[in-house]
Amino acid sequence: MIDYDPHRWWTYFHYLRGSMIKEIVYRVMACVLWSVGVVAVHLHVRPMDIQPTVHTLAGISLSLLLVFRTNSSYDRFWEGRKLWGGIVNETRNLARAAGVFLRGDAALYGALLRWTTAFPYASAAALRGSSADLGPRAAELPPEQVAQVRGAQHVPLAVARRMSELLDEGRRRGYYAEYVQLQLDQNVQLLIDYLGGCERIHKTPMPFAYMLHLRRALVLYCFSLPLALVDVFGWATVPATFVVAYLFFGIEEIGVEIEDPFGNDDNDLPLERICDTIQKNLTALLPADGSAPQVSPTP
Amino acid sequence: MIDYDPHRWWTYFHYLRGSMIKEIVYRVMACVLWSVGVVAVHLHVRPMDIQPTVHTLAGISLSLLLVFRTNSSYDRFWEGRKLWGGIVNETRNLARAAGVFLRGDAALYGALLRWTTAFPYASAAALRGSSADLGPRAAELPPEQVAQVRGAQHVPLAVARRMSELLDEGRRRGYYAEYVQLQLDQNVQLLIDYLGGCERIHKTPMPFAYMLHLRRALVLYCFSLPLALVDVFGWATVPATFVVAYLFFGIEEIGVEIEDPFGNDDNDLPLERICDTIQKNLTALLPADGSAPQVSPTP
Amino acid sequence: MIDYDPHRWWTYFHYLRGSMIKEIVYRVMACVLWSVGVVAVHLHVRPMDIQPTVHTLAGISLSLLLVFRTNSSYDRFWEGRKLWGGIVNETRNLARAAGVFLRGDAALYGALLRWTTAFPYASAAALRGSSADLGPRAAELPPEQVAQVRGAQHVPLAVARRMSELLDEGRRRGYYAEYVQLQLDQNVQLLIDYLGGCERIHKTPMPFAYMLHLRRALVLYCFSLPLALVDVFGWATVPATFVVAYLFFGIEEIGVEIEDPFGNDDNDLPLERICDTIQKNLTALLPADGSAPQVSPTP
Amino acid sequence: MIDYDPHRWWTYFHYLRGSMIKEIVYRVMACVLWSVGVVAVHLHVRPMDIQPTVHTLAGISLSLLLVFRTNSSYDRFWEGRKLWGGIVNETRNLARAAGVFLRGDAALYGALLRWTTAFPYASAAALRGSSADLGPRAAELPPEQVAQVRGAQHVPLAVARRMSELLDEGRRRGYYAEYVQLQLDQNVQLLIDYLGGCERIHKTPMPFAYMLHLRRALVLYCFSLPLALVDVFGWATVPATFVVAYLFFGIEEIGVEIEDPFGNDDNDLPLERICDTIQKNLTALLPADGSAPQVSPTP
Amino acid sequence: MIDYDPHRWWTYFHYLRGSMIKEIVYRVMACVLWSVGVVAVHLHVRPMDIQPTVHTLAGISLSLLLVFRTNSSYDRFWEGRKLWGGIVNETRNLARAAGVFLRGDAALYGALLRWTTAFPYASAAALRGSSADLGPRAAELPPEQVAQVRGAQHVPLAVARRMSELLDEGRRRGYYAEYVQLQLDQNVQLLIDYLGGCERIHKTPMPFAYMLHLRRALVLYCFSLPLALVDVFGWATVPATFVVAYLFFGIEEIGVEIEDPFGNDDNDLPLERICDTIQKNLTALLPADGSAPQVSPTP
Repeated sequence: MIDYDPHRWWTYFHYLRGSMIKEIVYRVMACVLWSVGVVAVHLHVRPMDIQPTVHTLAGISLSLLLVFRTNSSYDRFWEGRKLWGGIVNETRNLARAAGVFLRGDAALYGALLRWTTAFPYASAAALRGSSADLGPRAAELPPEQVAQVRGAQHVPLAVARRMSELLDEGRRRGYYAEYVQLQLDQNVQLLIDYLGGCERIHKTPMPFAYMLHLRRALVLYCFSLPLALVDVFGWATVPATFVVAYLFFGIEEIGVEIEDPFGNDDNDLPLERICDTIQKNLTALLPADGSAPQVSPTP
Repeated sequence: MIDYDPHRWWTYFHYLRGSMIKEIVYRVMACVLWSVGVVAVHLHVRPMDIQPTVHTLAGISLSLLLVFRTNSSYDRFWEGRKLWGGIVNETRNLARAAGVFLRGDAALYGALLRWTTAFPYASAAALRGSSADLGPRAAELPPEQVAQVRGAQHVPLAVARRMSELLDEGRRRGYYAEYVQLQLDQNVQLLIDYLGGCERIHKTPMPFAYMLHLRRALVLYCFSLPLALVDVFGWATVPATFVVAYLFFGIEEIGVEIEDPFGNDDNDLPLERICDTIQKNLTALLPADGSAPQVSPTP
Repeated sequence: MIDYDPHRWWTYFHYLRGSMIKEIVYRVMACVLWSVGVVAVHLHVRPMDIQPTVHTLAGISLSLLLVFRTNSSYDRFWEGRKLWGGIVNETRNLARAAGVFLRGDAALYGALLRWTTAFPYASAAALRGSSADLGPRAAELPPEQVAQVRGAQHVPLAVARRMSELLDEGRRRGYYAEYVQLQLDQNVQLLIDYLGGCERIHKTPMPFAYMLHLRRALVLYCFSLPLALVDVFGWATVPATFVVAYLFFGIEEIGVEIEDPFGNDDNDLPLERICDTIQKNLTALLPADGSAPQVSPTP
Repeated sequence: MIDYDPHRWWTYFHYLRGSMIKEIVYRVMACVLWSVGVVAVHLHVRPMDIQPTVHTLAGISLSLLLVFRTNSSYDRFWEGRKLWGGIVNETRNLARAAGVFLRGDAALYGALLRWTTAFPYASAAALRGSSADLGPRAAELPPEQVAQVRGAQHVPLAVARRMSELLDEGRRRGYYAEYVQLQLDQNVQLLIDYLGGCERIHKTPMPFAYMLHLRRALVLYCFSLPLALVDVFGWATVPATFVVAYLFFGIEEIGVEIEDPFGNDDNDLPLERICDTIQKNLTALLPADGSAPQVSPTP
Repeated sequence: MIDYDPHRWWTYFHYLRGSMIKEIVYRVMACVLWSVGVVAVHLHVRPMDIQPTVHTLAGISLSLLLVFRTNSSYDRFWEGRKLWGGIVNETRNLARAAGVFLRGDAALYGALLRWTTAFPYASAAALRGSSADLGPRAAELPPEQVAQVRGAQHVPLAVARRMSELLDEGRRRGYYAEYVQLQLDQNVQLLIDYLGGCERIHKTPMPFAYMLHLRRALVLYCFSLPLALVDVFGWATVPATFVVAYLFFGIEEIGVEIEDPFGNDDNDLPLERICDTIQKNLTALLPADGSAPQVSPTP
């Protein structure tokens, strides 16, 4: 993700990075070159202009379809962000709630915290299709367990399973009853739900027919536009076509960029930063000297 | 579902499959042929043109109605996807949470996992109206039970009932208390809720009046369009009508294609693939040698 | 509700039923007759045309308001459908979850199932303002209890109360603990929540000012339209006015038809069919011979 | 709230009440008088017309902003209605669920029901800023308790506190365990959540900048409109300006009317009626003769 | 936040504060000055006009994108308000529910209430990046605990941890069972969820590409507009450009102002006032004389 301050208006106008120029430049250029050809033929060979009536009529539907598509993508972007926000919340809640019961067993609590920090790293890696990563705290976990988890069919599920086992261990050691175990396990369940939500967004693009129909309509519209402009615009048809093509192809490309926000692109979510935030929040709770933080409520 | 990479822009332009060409070709052709007739009569028999004012005025409402309808359908598509994502999540959660308590009884846990994998297959078959299918793991279940479930009035409900029975059996064997049983059963309850949601989408199309009014308005609009274009477009009326008809009938058809996303069409959800993912995730948890996976938390 | 196949495009074009023709015919005809008068006066008495500028400017707001209103109504339709889908789910869940605990007491379980099937019938009757109906299974319940429920101030609440009593009876007979009773009662609570949601939709139409302002604006727009068209359209003003009036009044009427989807109209929800589905699902669980279904999990 | 039947189309056209005429009449008249001045100057003093191009270009944004604002207000109206629907549901659920456990203690159950009916009345009064009202059943409660609640810093919270105390009393008298108490108290918690939601809507209008920018843009648009119409409309500019101003100011006013739906205006929610419904539903459950309703499930 | 009465229409027209004039004045002025130059060159040097066709065609997409962006920002504003409404609700619920169980231990209950009032103050400070603030009640808490919390890595989490410890202390002192503790702790969990939601909104602006493409398109549109108007508007091009630029840049600026509503700007949420409301509600529950409020339910 690119950090920016929305209150600074003119600062980013020259940015190439994150502004999709590289992505749409060929489409827009093809359209502009075509408009050069149309103007040249119209002026020097034979007239080939049409009235802009059809572009006016079809433009409304096309604009609506285009902007709705981009907003559906934004909804996916925002839902993805919400899911990761949920991952932040549940790791915090699990750490806080378990800390109260496990204060006397720094080793068990430490292991739980470390596996909990591993979950977001494993999830990010799974969503990005990169090799299994368990984050910086994994080095403090038993290597054979880490290796077993790394080799699992679904790494984040294996981490979650490990967390459930530790919560079960806490009950068996008598720190809480079965009921508390299940409540704490609810947080693990939510983590899996949120990851499942991310996988859903990642694996399901817009329906094929929607994407294709919109693109075909865009191409029909933009490439026939010079014919509708050439008679009154003359050579100004070329910059005019550029503006429309840049606007329309750009809106479409925004939709593509953000509909799967879990990649490494400039407009994707900052998963590393979120993972690091979780890791820092939880590391602050780690008992430094082997004992849980002392609590002395003085009511 | 057609797999595609939304970042590849030009790759799919020639696709017939999934692009609704077959569905809308007759409507669009009828409209184009009609426009040929209109132009011919106008040029050679007697003028029959009108001004495009009405098409401009009515076009806004029609476009809005059309695009809103398509987006309502997309919302149904996405809701259907969410429901199946929920089915993935709950099967995972049930398997993980039950695994902690049933680690000592590989037979019971195995039966639960196998019935759990049967649920999505049975649901997909029920939604598609095909004959009862319980997936590849059903072969490892007692044949008489499988036969009884296959013959039930509502197969997925019968599978869920079987799962509830197994959870009850776990309590009766003393692996957990009534409270844990109910918590685990919540996952079964959610599975039934999600399936109910899918049945709701499947059985309830857009209101009849909405669908019909939109189509009648579309036909009125597209078939009167040549009259409004013929005077200034001449023979160019024919491709112009084609573009508008292709755009409008196409948007309407997208709405039809995705409003019930549980079928076998090109734009429907990949239910088989989701079922297979669930089956793989759960099979990985199956105790291979009759014993549940060993756990040794080393805190 | 009218059953239809959205993939069949031309089949329903001649339908009068469900297509709102009867509802809007007088409005549209009034507008068309008025346009005949306008054209006649304009051509034979004195010119009375205006430019269409204002219709273009106001048309955008009006179209947006119109289509948004219809979509708000569709949201209510769909929310109503979801609530009834929730009623289906919770009756299924209650039957399934209670069945596990009440397997040994076919009489109690049978009574619970029968009262559960009565709930949707009672709810549908309450929403429609018809006389209390408890469905076909009510005949198998004690007549004095049925009579008492039928005479209650709020019949579905009385049915729910009866269900809660039976769940309490189950606990008193020792089939489960207080905790299980409350969990099962959650399903009853959800049934009441869903019914309350339906009552909310039923009793709260669109805000009065919204409805009235839209209709006044529609009438101003449609009845002034012939003035804006007559100069360039001549007698074609009459069909042109017809098309616009048909489109606009039709969209408004869709909104009216579906904003309260619990009636008996062609575009309302098929409540009887949903009730019958529930009744069939639950009847399949009724112990035929006085004994609950045998279960033999063979893990 | 004004009761009306949306299926009666022409019945309400003459209504002044609830139709915002009083609210917008001065704005619209100012605009119309200004247009009279513009036409007079243009025709008799010196031409002062402009082309309508800018009104066409700016009109789209303005219309979108206007209609979106009104729909955001409608969403708040509908959310407010949902929250009160939730209050209906939870009072019913509390009464039903508590009734099962408190059947033997008519005095305690009666007090709980009476305090429960007081909650919606107290909430409505708090939202409307009127003096504390506890509804008709408050007369049957101990006067000193009623006086204490009336004098509290936040009356509905004090009522809820009283309800929680009664539920605690029920546990102390041994009618149910701590667990049941907490489950019943969940309904009280939901009542507080719903009231909090209403307070949120009541206290947070649309952002100031949104409201002000829209109104400034509306005034700029409507007061410059006569200049754009006068050349081709002549004196017809006056009714044309009237229509646009009436439409636009009216849409804006709908947004204002319904964004805080808890007042006593014609378009606000019928809080009294909802309170009365709750009171009637719960009074029907009051043990008439000091004993709770007898239950004899005959399974 | 600026307090205003939406029913007073003309009162705020002269406001500079909160009306974004300061924010957009340079952009709008640049555009106006440019239009002066265009008109001067066109009239006195050489014609440089174009037709407005392209502005009409592109204006629809641009307007849609602009208004959708502003509405997405409004959704964030409203979601932020909902989250703080949730914080109000949960602090109330925790105070009410805990009060029932802790009535006998005024010291413990007082400490819990005071820490609970500290949570919203700490959250507001964290969202605004200001130095840790625990509100007016923090002075009544043990200074060393306050200092420790102020120095924590994440102050609101540390407050929540303190609240969990006090709830645990209540259980250890025997006022309630583990089950009740967990239920009360759910409210703390919700507080953390709501804070996490606020952090999500605060840290995630609109996608960079969306913001930048919209601004570039706005600049292209507004700065080319004088060319499209100059031929028919003459010097009236200057005020016309002003109106469009003011409208468009203003809508964009609204989106920027309200997308992160947790700051100290005129259009941000009144966090201080919400914190004070919570503090007052909870202070009213503080046992004045060291004993919890007496309760004497007289059923």
